Formats: sequence, structure tokens, C-alpha cells
Amino acid sequence: LPRLSEDELIATIFAPLAGPGGLRLEDDAALLKVAVGEELVLTKDMLVAGVHFFADDPPDAIARKALRVNLSDLAAKAAEPRGFLLGLGLPGDWQEDWLKAFAAGLGEDCKSFAISLLGGDTVRTPGPLTLSITAIGAVPEGKMIPRGGAKAGDHLFVTGTIGDAALGLKLRRNAEGDQAWIGSLDETQAAYLRDRYLLPQPRVGLRQALRAYAHAAMDISDGFAGDLAKMLRLAGLTIEIGAGQVPLSEAARAALAAEPQCLSTILTGGDDYEILCAIPPEEKAGFAASAAAAGIKVQEIGMCTPGREPVRIRDAKGELLSFEAGSYQHF
Amino acid sequence: LPRLSEDELIATIFAPLAGPGGLRLEDDAALLKVAVGEELVLTKDMLVAGVHFFADDPPDAIARKALRVNLSDLAAKAAEPRGFLLGLGLPGDWQEDWLKAFAAGLGEDCKSFAISLLGGDTVRTPGPLTLSITAIGAVPEGKMIPRGGAKAGDHLFVTGTIGDAALGLKLRRNAEGDQAWIGSLDETQAAYLRDRYLLPQPRVGLRQALRAYAHAAMDISDGFAGDLAKMLRLAGLTIEIGAGQVPLSEAARAALAAEPQCLSTILTGGDDYEILCAIPPEEKAGFAASAAAAGIKVQEIGMCTPGREPVRIRDAKGELLSFEAGSYQHF
Repeated sequence: LPRLSEDELIATIFAPLAGPGGLRLEDDAALLKVAVGEELVLTKDMLVAGVHFFADDPPDAIARKALRVNLSDLAAKAAEPRGFLLGLGLPGDWQEDWLKAFAAGLGEDCKSFAISLLGGDTVRTPGPLTLSITAIGAVPEGKMIPRGGAKAGDHLFVTGTIGDAALGLKLRRNAEGDQAWIGSLDETQAAYLRDRYLLPQPRVGLRQALRAYAHAAMDISDGFAGDLAKMLRLAGLTIEIGAGQVPLSEAARAALAAEPQCLSTILTGGDDYEILCAIPPEEKAGFAASAAAAGIKVQEIGMCTPGREPVRIRDAKGELLSFEAGSYQHF
Repeated sequence: LPRLSEDELIATIFAPLAGPGGLRLEDDAALLKVAVGEELVLTKDMLVAGVHFFADDPPDAIARKALRVNLSDLAAKAAEPRGFLLGLGLPGDWQEDWLKAFAAGLGEDCKSFAISLLGGDTVRTPGPLTLSITAIGAVPEGKMIPRGGAKAGDHLFVTGTIGDAALGLKLRRNAEGDQAWIGSLDETQAAYLRDRYLLPQPRVGLRQALRAYAHAAMDISDGFAGDLAKMLRLAGLTIEIGAGQVPLSEAARAALAAEPQCLSTILTGGDDYEILCAIPPEEKAGFAASAAAAGIKVQEIGMCTPGREPVRIRDAKGELLSFEAGSYQHF
């Protein structure tokens, strides 16, 4: 079968995902109108097969993950998703069916998250499949929640649960040292963890609660312990928390019960795509109610105090934990 | 020597290029303020070593080319550059010196084109060096010049000269069939063509002339003949031009004199990063004067007329040219 040319591929597979600003993907660029009183929030994440996802993951899941990791950044800034540009580096052996499934997954997430394709670029690469998405959101003027805005006395909250995706990645890899705890999970628990790695759940619904109550917020993507430290360092603050304060799923608790070493993976493994935020004490109830109204589970993990010393996390016996790597590093 | 971590690399090498909206590259996302009465123009180009540039090109030139191909899209839309996000996929053997030179080149172009870094992502890739830039520009409301807006009777103009970069790429490759004409060039001519491939000259200065006079404009990047056809097809128009109307550099004319087959490379080879635009007949003088005031050479190539038939280009003897590929295809 003759391959689609780049122009045909764009016209048949990607143009249907374009919103009004995408100009049917027929122009050199996209056009984005911004309402008076709004500011834009822009983020860009790049994903490479074999580094950020498995090349044999379902194509619709690859597309969704690439979009969702960007939506998670917008969510943490309290921005409403508006549009995105897609850079797609395709290996020489790409198949039309694969690309159609990829676009279908992207299209479903465009609907779910009310975002549309603005443009992009499709190129050939001799390397692995490479995706680069730039996502654009909007906030009312002055309402982007900064990463560094926490104040002494603020209480920190975390959405969802931590560590699932990192455990899910270990499940996928199934290394010898992990097989005991992996074997102890039932199929529902294992599937839950695998799915949390495959398909992040960006907390876009939290934006009203953040705009109304948060001093600071960030997306937890490079490991809870390291990202917590990043937020507090920017603000000249520190915190001491018990590991028991960190919200865990039932599946993660089962893994941890089978293998206590899983705690390090949970707290530093990355790929959580949950939101960490700082809420002043008098606003805790309002924030919790607003998050609950949006259907998003939040858990308080502790109060930050002035100080430059590193974040301390204690285990159930009160002993200070130390991690080989506080944060996932891409290098 | 220990490698810089991703965070250190961003803080030491890229943060100095960040503008106010880049928030010192310390946040999850960038913040872009848009003035009342402005609209944003967004474009994204992805470049892969070995496909869009040579891996052993000077690092500063690689950075500049990646930025400039995006600036060329903004220029064609009459947009003023405002900021960009950089996705950088680094092979495992990256060197700090290489990256510093890359950032230095980027920094110089940030100054030259009055644009600043807003954010991005740096990842490891097992494949070749991969760059993905999203550039953002601004236009007064309603003033983005569309690709498809040409009207019957409009005269088409081209900036600069066509075919230099495609010939420069052939020079770099030095294939056996090209060695006769390559050998006939003097060193100044050869260096000129090589430089045109290495370092595009985005025509950002043309934006006032386009805003004031153009019905349609596009960036010529995938080959003059094919891009010309794309613009006219969108408008339901056609054109017949003489190849002699296409503006050529002295070096390209020398190559063509030595090897008439070079005409196909010149007209379809791509990487020109010049602007094609449609100007109503009564505005030709105004447009030419405005372009001249901006220091940009423009040449009229012909008048478009209603019609769905393909663009025709005739050679000096009046014979109709046909090309194996009307346009550069990435697949």
C-alpha cells in the first residue's frame, strides 16, 4: 500500500482534531484569541519511546499520556485547557492503523478535557517514536498559582494517591528483585497499578479550588519527595511529615505490606501527575469542600515552617527516611 | 566529570535565556500576558539530526536553525515574535561544552529577534538529537495574514532568493552526480550556498508590509513549486510563471549555468524560509516601498487567476517544466 504523504496524513488523520484556532491545519500557524482579563499558561513535555513509555503500549494510550502529562501542568497552575500543538517524530516503519488509533485516543481526550489541536509538525526520525506537546491554558489575570508561593504556616495537600505509577512501571518491568511483591498482588491490584502508569489522571477539575484558596501548587511528576523539596526550597520553607500522611491506594498499600522497600519507589518514583498545593490554615475547610465538590480526593500532609534544611520524612517508627535519589532524573 | 542533572542543566544553561514569562524556568509552566487588541500566532517545528540538519553542524547553528524555522512561520503570518518553548531530546553522549555553545547560539538569536525563552523540556533519547520548538507571536486583532486569502488578480511576490539552501545541502552531501557543478563554483559561491542551508534568514522585518498590503502569505519551506501550488489551491486560483521570474542568488545562477538540472533542485528542494505573498495590484508600489524600507528584497513573480488547474512554470524557451516531486516530503 502506498504510504500517506505528510500532507495527506495531516489532512485525513489530524485535521479532524483541530479547533477553530487550528485553521483546519492548512496554514503555517495557529491563531489563538485571548479574552480581556485572561493570561495564558504554557507548558511543554517531550516523551520518547523506551524512556517515557513502552513502544508497544497501545497507541491511543501513548497519545493520551503525552497530552495528559501536559494537562497535569496546566491543572497545577489552575489553568483551563485551551489548545495544544503536537510534534510527532515517526520512525520509518510507522503504520497507518497505528496512527489512526493514536489520533482516535487523542480525539477522545480532546473531548474529555475540552481542548483542541492547534497545530504541530510531523517528521521522520531514525530514532524511536518521539512526541512533543505544547499545551496552552488560560487563567484570569493574576490567578496562575505559582510553584514558589507557599508561606510559613500553610498546610500542604496532595490530590489522589502517590506511588501507583512507579509501582506500575516496576510491574511492567518485572525485574527479579520485584517478583515477590508483584506476585503477592491480586489481578485487580496489579491492573490498577499498571493503568496508573499507562494513563495519568490530570486533576484539571481542581482549578477553581486552587484559584480560590492556594498560595502555591505544582504537579508531582518527578517523585513526591523531590518535588516536595523543590516547592519548599523555592519558598525558603521546610516540612517534616510522616510517611503515613502520604495518600496511598489500596494496591500500593498491598505492595508496601509485601515489601517495605517499596516505600522508596512510592515516594521517589515519579509519574504521579498529582497536585501538591499550599493552603493557608484558615482556608483548609473551604479548599477541602471545593475539591470534594469537583470530585477530587485531597489529603493534608503537614504544615510548612521557615527553614532551609531538607524536607524530612519519617517512617511509622519515627525514623528518618533517606533516599538514594530524591527525585526521578532523566539523565 | 560528573554530568549536570536535568535541574542543574536548566538552571545554569537555559535559565539565563528566560524572559519574564519564563519565571526563571522554576515553575511548571510559563505565563504569557497578551495585550488587549492582540491575538496570538503559534507554530511548532521539529528538527531531527540527520534529517533536518547534520549532527556535526556547529551547535550554535543547530540552535539558531531550530528557532529560525519557527520565526519564519511567524514572519509569514505578520506576527511579532514574543516567546518560545524548547523541547530538547539529548542522546546519551551529550557534552556540556556542546550544550553551552548551543545555548549561546540560541541566546544570540534571542537578542537579534527580540524573543525570549518561556520554558520547555529536556529529556534523554536513545535516538538522534531532536529539537522541538513552539514559537509564539502576536498580531493586532484580525491582522494575521492567512495562507489561503489570495484573490484573483493579486500579484504574487517572493522575498530573498529561492533554491540556495537546497543547493547548499547538495554541496554538503557532494554526491557524484553533483560534483561537476559543485566544482565549477568559486569558494565564495559555495560558502554562500552552504550558509543558506545552515542558517535560514527569517523575514521577520516584513510584518508591517504584510499587515498593510497582503491578502495572503506563507513561508516557503517545502519547495517553491509545491508551496506556490498549496497557496493557490487553497484560494481556488492558479498561475503561470516563467522560471526566470523566480529570484536567484548569483551563486544559484552560477550552479544553474553549470548544470541546467539544478533548476529542479532550486524550484522544489525546500529549506528556503522565504515568504510568498499575494498583493492586490493597486498596492504593489506601497508593498514594495514598505519592504524596501525594512531592507527586504522582494520580487514579483506573476498574477494569479481563477482556476483549479495546477501551477505552470515555463523555462526560458517557454516549455512547461514538470517535477518529479513538486514539494519536499518528509516521508
